[in-house]
Amino acid sequence: MDLEAVRIDREANELVILDQTRLPGEVLRIRLRAQKDIHEAIRALRVRGAPAIGIAAGYAAYLAALDADAKDAPGLLQKFLDAKRFLASSRPTAVNLFWALDRMERRLRKEIDRARPLPEIAAALLEEADAIKDEDIAMCRAIGENGLALLRPGMGILTHCNAGQLAASRYGTALAPVYLGQERGYAFRVYADETRPLLQGARLTAFELTAAGVDATLLCDNMAAALMKTGRVDAVLVGCDRVAANGDAANKIGTSGVAILARHYGIPFYVLGPTSTIDMACPDGDAIAIENRDPAEVTELWYEKRMAPEGVSVFNPAFDVTPAELISGIVTERGVARAPFAPVFREWLGGA
Amino acid sequence: MDLEAVRIDREANELVILDQTRLPGEVLRIRLRAQKDIHEAIRALRVRGAPAIGIAAGYAAYLAALDADAKDAPGLLQKFLDAKRFLASSRPTAVNLFWALDRMERRLRKEIDRARPLPEIAAALLEEADAIKDEDIAMCRAIGENGLALLRPGMGILTHCNAGQLAASRYGTALAPVYLGQERGYAFRVYADETRPLLQGARLTAFELTAAGVDATLLCDNMAAALMKTGRVDAVLVGCDRVAANGDAANKIGTSGVAILARHYGIPFYVLGPTSTIDMACPDGDAIAIENRDPAEVTELWYEKRMAPEGVSVFNPAFDVTPAELISGIVTERGVARAPFAPVFREWLGGA
Repeated sequence: MDLEAVRIDREANELVILDQTRLPGEVLRIRLRAQKDIHEAIRALRVRGAPAIGIAAGYAAYLAALDADAKDAPGLLQKFLDAKRFLASSRPTAVNLFWALDRMERRLRKEIDRARPLPEIAAALLEEADAIKDEDIAMCRAIGENGLALLRPGMGILTHCNAGQLAASRYGTALAPVYLGQERGYAFRVYADETRPLLQGARLTAFELTAAGVDATLLCDNMAAALMKTGRVDAVLVGCDRVAANGDAANKIGTSGVAILARHYGIPFYVLGPTSTIDMACPDGDAIAIENRDPAEVTELWYEKRMAPEGVSVFNPAFDVTPAELISGIVTERGVARAPFAPVFREWLGGA
Repeated sequence: MDLEAVRIDREANELVILDQTRLPGEVLRIRLRAQKDIHEAIRALRVRGAPAIGIAAGYAAYLAALDADAKDAPGLLQKFLDAKRFLASSRPTAVNLFWALDRMERRLRKEIDRARPLPEIAAALLEEADAIKDEDIAMCRAIGENGLALLRPGMGILTHCNAGQLAASRYGTALAPVYLGQERGYAFRVYADETRPLLQGARLTAFELTAAGVDATLLCDNMAAALMKTGRVDAVLVGCDRVAANGDAANKIGTSGVAILARHYGIPFYVLGPTSTIDMACPDGDAIAIENRDPAEVTELWYEKRMAPEGVSVFNPAFDVTPAELISGIVTERGVARAPFAPVFREWLGGA
């Protein structure tokens, strides 16, 4: 089954998105061209995951230029900047969204500076958006190769949340070794935490693994300890939203608990992501602000029926920080860092 | 708010049950007299929790004798045994159900042996059922006193699943120290794991604590590690379904994970329950069989909407075993046992 999260239709000039709010019940592709529709799709999490959002934003910027209906380059730039500002407001905490839009703007200004005709400028922007996507695929593949080198065929792998192909262009990050292994007959058994409150593990990870023919088993988050005790988990692979300079890693809420359980049972715990998630300006996990989200995510099951009493307080952080000392390795497109992490990060990224 | 899980109406001779399948949305009391209706209420978990089921069974046995419409003692015994067999089939794994029915049968045979008139036999059975309930209240209160001695005012307490008053007659087991502390102005802050898959923490624990005016905060199971890291949890209190002779304790799935997290953060972890849950014939946790439950509990949110892909495997054990070495103390009506547990258990229960 084709589960590409986002692509461009070059004939129709439409953005084609796999609507992730409909999964796993329905595999629905939506075709978008108007900026307001793309904005809505990002805001409503129809497309989600940092890499996938970046790719969608790239193509959206191309479509904005294509449809700008401008008479000259200054007019095009003005309309592009309007569209960029509008798109950037769709998900104000998604760093990759701004990164991709900035990259598209730089390319636009470069082509304008070169005084190229408007149709050629649009073509250049399509090329740039394609590059964002191609680079993401190559990066995920490199993460996958580096991660796969840590694993052996037949292993049981536990993952938390969704850092798979639905969050990226292909392969994903945490699941990239699983998909590369699948191509090579590694026959991994993958265990997916359901990942409350939004159930990305149940809805997305279990779905994409099953669709890819991977041996996938779903469990509630609180079952991970019992599963590890059975000896069926040989390694834990998780993604990351932000990695501090010392190796502390922020990821979906629950990740740090899995790391503590893995340490207790002597199971290696790996964090996978691109080097762009390493923030050398952030000294350690204490410097990472953790967003607290809507209590209704916890009290109302999938927003359809209230399952908790009125008036109860709710603790609902979106992320937690796994301390570096619980991380066996941080796997990036550049290789695998092990503690102490800072020197390896400096080698990869530069800096003092 | 009166949240008594089960009581007898002495005027109407009806069993009054707080229907726990309607919580937290609706506080609905149902009045039952026919054996088939009581059977259904136990089977459908309208009344649940080992002590509460035992109490319901005691009164059900009394009502069976009252309504037997027998001409003589042998006829009464025959009808009683029919009713007992029928009630015992309502929840075949609930040990307390059989225990209470057996106790009622012994009392019935004793009264028959004493050749008492039928109306007096019925009165004796009501007395016996009342005794089951009164002893449960006294036992829960003693557990509460012994647990409270381990705590200080203002503490933050994390609990998992529901071992509160809804599971018993009053006080509950794990929550008994909380309610006694509430009576004495201890001002505990209580954190309730929602307890997937059936959400007893969200639906029942958060409900009964809030109704009792306790400062209660609900969290998803995977948020416990992040909560502990904030320093807000000073102790963990959980119930138990079965304790082995070495102190290994079986309880709701997820309990052992909480114990591992508590150990990691240096937080005391207490298991609370009556000495009747200690099974000296069971040497350790490996001898405790763990029931695997319906995958639909995990894949279909509250059985209303499917949240996981078709075809995915599911790991859904009902319980897990917390090893004795992670338990700071086992609190019973007799006192607090600390490792090594076996000598204390032998002192309490006898045996070699």
